[in-house]
Amino acid sequence: MIYFRSDYSQGAHPKVMEALANTNLEHTDGYCMDPHCENAARMIRELIGIEDCAVHMMVGGTPCNVTVIAAALRPYESVIAARSGHIYKHETGAVEGTGHRVTAMDSPDGKLTPGLIDLAMEEYDDEHTVLPRMAYISQPTEIGSLYSRAELTALRKKCDEKNLLLYVDGARLGSALTSEENDLPINELAKLCDAFYIGGTKNGALFGEALVILNKAMDDHFRFMIKRQCGMLAKGRLIGVQFEALLEGGKDSIYFKMAAHANSLAKKLRDGLAGLGVKFYSESQTNQIFPVLPAPVVKELEKDFFFYEWAPEKEGMIPIRLVTGWGSDASDVDAFLQKTGELLGR
Amino acid sequence: MIYFRSDYSQGAHPKVMEALANTNLEHTDGYCMDPHCENAARMIRELIGIEDCAVHMMVGGTPCNVTVIAAALRPYESVIAARSGHIYKHETGAVEGTGHRVTAMDSPDGKLTPGLIDLAMEEYDDEHTVLPRMAYISQPTEIGSLYSRAELTALRKKCDEKNLLLYVDGARLGSALTSEENDLPINELAKLCDAFYIGGTKNGALFGEALVILNKAMDDHFRFMIKRQCGMLAKGRLIGVQFEALLEGGKDSIYFKMAAHANSLAKKLRDGLAGLGVKFYSESQTNQIFPVLPAPVVKELEKDFFFYEWAPEKEGMIPIRLVTGWGSDASDVDAFLQKTGELLGR
Amino acid sequence: MIYFRSDYSQGAHPKVMEALANTNLEHTDGYCMDPHCENAARMIRELIGIEDCAVHMMVGGTPCNVTVIAAALRPYESVIAARSGHIYKHETGAVEGTGHRVTAMDSPDGKLTPGLIDLAMEEYDDEHTVLPRMAYISQPTEIGSLYSRAELTALRKKCDEKNLLLYVDGARLGSALTSEENDLPINELAKLCDAFYIGGTKNGALFGEALVILNKAMDDHFRFMIKRQCGMLAKGRLIGVQFEALLEGGKDSIYFKMAAHANSLAKKLRDGLAGLGVKFYSESQTNQIFPVLPAPVVKELEKDFFFYEWAPEKEGMIPIRLVTGWGSDASDVDAFLQKTGELLGR
Amino acid sequence: MIYFRSDYSQGAHPKVMEALANTNLEHTDGYCMDPHCENAARMIRELIGIEDCAVHMMVGGTPCNVTVIAAALRPYESVIAARSGHIYKHETGAVEGTGHRVTAMDSPDGKLTPGLIDLAMEEYDDEHTVLPRMAYISQPTEIGSLYSRAELTALRKKCDEKNLLLYVDGARLGSALTSEENDLPINELAKLCDAFYIGGTKNGALFGEALVILNKAMDDHFRFMIKRQCGMLAKGRLIGVQFEALLEGGKDSIYFKMAAHANSLAKKLRDGLAGLGVKFYSESQTNQIFPVLPAPVVKELEKDFFFYEWAPEKEGMIPIRLVTGWGSDASDVDAFLQKTGELLGR
Repeated sequence: MIYFRSDYSQGAHPKVMEALANTNLEHTDGYCMDPHCENAARMIRELIGIEDCAVHMMVGGTPCNVTVIAAALRPYESVIAARSGHIYKHETGAVEGTGHRVTAMDSPDGKLTPGLIDLAMEEYDDEHTVLPRMAYISQPTEIGSLYSRAELTALRKKCDEKNLLLYVDGARLGSALTSEENDLPINELAKLCDAFYIGGTKNGALFGEALVILNKAMDDHFRFMIKRQCGMLAKGRLIGVQFEALLEGGKDSIYFKMAAHANSLAKKLRDGLAGLGVKFYSESQTNQIFPVLPAPVVKELEKDFFFYEWAPEKEGMIPIRLVTGWGSDASDVDAFLQKTGELLGR
Repeated sequence: MIYFRSDYSQGAHPKVMEALANTNLEHTDGYCMDPHCENAARMIRELIGIEDCAVHMMVGGTPCNVTVIAAALRPYESVIAARSGHIYKHETGAVEGTGHRVTAMDSPDGKLTPGLIDLAMEEYDDEHTVLPRMAYISQPTEIGSLYSRAELTALRKKCDEKNLLLYVDGARLGSALTSEENDLPINELAKLCDAFYIGGTKNGALFGEALVILNKAMDDHFRFMIKRQCGMLAKGRLIGVQFEALLEGGKDSIYFKMAAHANSLAKKLRDGLAGLGVKFYSESQTNQIFPVLPAPVVKELEKDFFFYEWAPEKEGMIPIRLVTGWGSDASDVDAFLQKTGELLGR
Repeated sequence: MIYFRSDYSQGAHPKVMEALANTNLEHTDGYCMDPHCENAARMIRELIGIEDCAVHMMVGGTPCNVTVIAAALRPYESVIAARSGHIYKHETGAVEGTGHRVTAMDSPDGKLTPGLIDLAMEEYDDEHTVLPRMAYISQPTEIGSLYSRAELTALRKKCDEKNLLLYVDGARLGSALTSEENDLPINELAKLCDAFYIGGTKNGALFGEALVILNKAMDDHFRFMIKRQCGMLAKGRLIGVQFEALLEGGKDSIYFKMAAHANSLAKKLRDGLAGLGVKFYSESQTNQIFPVLPAPVVKELEKDFFFYEWAPEKEGMIPIRLVTGWGSDASDVDAFLQKTGELLGR
Repeated sequence: MIYFRSDYSQGAHPKVMEALANTNLEHTDGYCMDPHCENAARMIRELIGIEDCAVHMMVGGTPCNVTVIAAALRPYESVIAARSGHIYKHETGAVEGTGHRVTAMDSPDGKLTPGLIDLAMEEYDDEHTVLPRMAYISQPTEIGSLYSRAELTALRKKCDEKNLLLYVDGARLGSALTSEENDLPINELAKLCDAFYIGGTKNGALFGEALVILNKAMDDHFRFMIKRQCGMLAKGRLIGVQFEALLEGGKDSIYFKMAAHANSLAKKLRDGLAGLGVKFYSESQTNQIFPVLPAPVVKELEKDFFFYEWAPEKEGMIPIRLVTGWGSDASDVDAFLQKTGELLGR
């Protein structure tokens, strides 16, 4: 069975495992109050070129999103997201569990736009309505698309106009940063938002995301919020150790190399399938692609390959999701293309 | 200033005031544990022809909706509603405040349909997604439209298929029941849903709604939920006394007479405006109508009449909401029609 | 059956009913945005001699408490209360329902003290512990005792030292203010706390409490919080009209007269029972008293009188609660004393 | 610096690290839907001798506690705990964050007793009060004491009588099970409670706790609850792999050996300090001990040893907490005893 199921189907990059092994017998204080978390934070500040920000080591994406939102919003406030956004679509109502609405806006390409924010704000009127206070986006989006620098700049401007915080879910940030089509480096991204996170789980860590809070007000008593939202890890240093290993070398680190590798294999897949005449559910520029294939072909492929059917069958066709990861191999891609070609008779 | 602002701009029908005065010096136990609440519940059971149901006297519509939803859903479950539904649009996130998503579906006529429910259910997949468990509708809807018997029957069927509870917000139920176009009497409505409420506030009470729970499972420890959601009134009998007065005489009671009166004045307004060539934002069959008028006309009308602008100006036109109530007078309608005619130059 | 069950077993003082009748046909805007609420707020500002404060008309005590607490606290913060305090003992966890702990402290006389606050603060350490941020007290307490001016001043000082807000539940504030033993007039009370409410329900209103927020920061978006906590009344003016009637004449208003009347009858009961050798569960100075009587006497009294057993029988004795109200009569008291005397054989 | 700070100051037992390394490149499905989690669950079912139970791999103790409680309770229900219990004392109100009260009972030895449950139940009366529905205990308790088989049996009986679920926090369960004074083996424990967890974090895992739910009703949609409470780990297999390694060999596994080792060092410390005339804050039978030492001695010890001061200084004495772990060494204990002896002049 070849896995295109997710970018978290394996363990961690060997260098991450090595770092964990090397530090295993150290004694440190718990809960991320240790030299490794401190050092990883320092490396991140350097990477983004901003000294004055808070960095928190978080266990996973959902706890990170939920804690940020619950910490930043007053009870009557909401967060605006694309209806395909992770906090709306795939977190089992965890945000609502903290008492806040996700104001979900239909978006064909998975991106939030100034226009969609205007539309969302129309739902706000007075004390009888929810007050939107944050815009949530993912870079790249959940369907693989990218915000350009111009798009994010426009979004920032709109957020300022509407008194919204701007938060970027970077579960696959590495993939965005290393996409050929990306024009938004991490230091520019950091300047344009109030908070974002650098995803580890989906790019070679066992687990862990590094949350960067640029807006001081959002950091108030944040560690209380992490604990209250059940996201405080006893051996918190594990996240610090992993990010040290991931980011060692900055732009030349394995973090960027792994993501670039996954992107290139996804591109190979995409180009190969396009060459077979396959259409796509969304236009992805990163390590997730969404080809639409005849149902019988999908069922046949499932015998050798493990992947998600992304949406229900319509008119005989099924959109599937193929994800490449740091551990994916070019031969996996070749095998998929060959089998698909055969099945399609091309 | 003539009020078409709402159907709750005045106090209560004189017979309600009289009942409150007559019982004022009685001593009773608190929290709706009194003979008046008991008697009102009996009258309601008789009215709907169902003996085996729970009746709770609630302070208002929002507390009623929120308590029902919070009582019925498990933490990961959501309630489906039209995006124009009261729980989504005008309750400041009170449902989300109890930890539940309102799965909001765009609906041009303010109604939920089996098709929209199918669409909402597509968002559900597994433990990573919210599980819809209730459909919320208002009869009439927030923009004045009515569910027919056939429509509600179809909705019930779809709810059964999808394991959804069906809850009907009856804030203006009197207006629905007495609409000329209504084919869904209250006893039929009661058979088709799991719970609904008979609105008092917007039909001649000082305040108060009578919640009817047909589905036993939804009534489990319900009084604990009322108190926990801050909806328990110390002098709960006040609601019982009011409903006794409102429903005295059953189908011939002032409850039905007041609603019919308000409907007839709304129809007069609607017909009059249509006669002036005015278009409407929605097709209402009840006591709220939504004419769309040129902005300068609206501004001029606001000098003599008090009403809501319902949506932002678009292309020079503003949709407004005109609501008639039990205390509205035919002369109010005449005055509005005359002034509007003058302003439109017709 | 003679009622000593509560001070909310009857409707409203006749002057309140009259005011409601007189204003019944007026049209006003809803949700407390009307001249009566505005006027009542003005009267309250005058009564306390403080111009610069917010006044909100609330439906009841629990919604008032819960909204204040939920509005003032950040998610990880708690409110300290006596274990006999209403928010801990009799609100079905409504405060916890908004996500906040009630840090409950044992208190023999129902009062919070600087020492108890110190004890509560010992539970706070760092981000692994709840952070207390408010002290909740009731004046008078739930068991009838009173804070003296010196006690409240000391509490204020301790709250300042510990960065706690001080909130006073005034469900029976009238009874406190008119107690012979009270040395804390309302204007002094107002200066010592961040927020308090003037209870209407238990002193001659149909319902309604007037919340006074002295601390500006606590008033931020407060109307959003009222709505979100389901406490916004459509015909909000009803509360304003009632408080106008209750407070007409300031210190000479029926608000103070009714409370003084109830207190004097409670005192008559207390003195009479003491004269019969009866002991008390708590030392009350207001309109609730808690005599401890032999179980058979209690059971016999329950045939003619309606009251609460306050705590379980212990060693053959049962503490009961007797409450007098604005509508209680001296003859009620005489009847109780005579019957009790007979039963005790004294 | 020698660490007696916690039993989670180091990484994982080498065999755990080895297992993680050995399985690192495997591809598996995410979210604990993999063969390792399945196998670990099977091993646990074998260990407790109960086939018919649910086993969930949880990230940490707080998420485990909070998810169990939020899943099991209806909104108006509370969980009873000792005031020293972890959910009350050290989880920053995370339980309250899900809307539930922790009914906290003072307990000198950190244990909940049938008598304390009776006392807690006295706070319950009717719909105006919180309804306790679960008893939470830790085995061993947060101050190191143990429930005997007789005590837990009595607690179970009381829980049955009061309709309470019984949940056991086993953060340090290994330490309890291997204590010389323990008479409650894991299979007996499992029979007496509705759910419990086997702690990994504090006994040689990087992180992870294995939750065992014996009571079917509590398992309803539990994975939805894990996700909604932000506790679902993408690479969930990591927990499964670790528990495979920890429990390999059952009673002879490193899980039991590590705990026994920590216990024996704690006993050595305790006996040594007792020999120096030191008194203890609590009587511990496990790997945490709480000696009370003169403040200057504590300050001096802190130069070489890292530990918690457990409670504020009183009359010149400070209770401290010393914890031994799988990686503690006899020489650490010797060093502490020698230094303390010197400082005490004994």
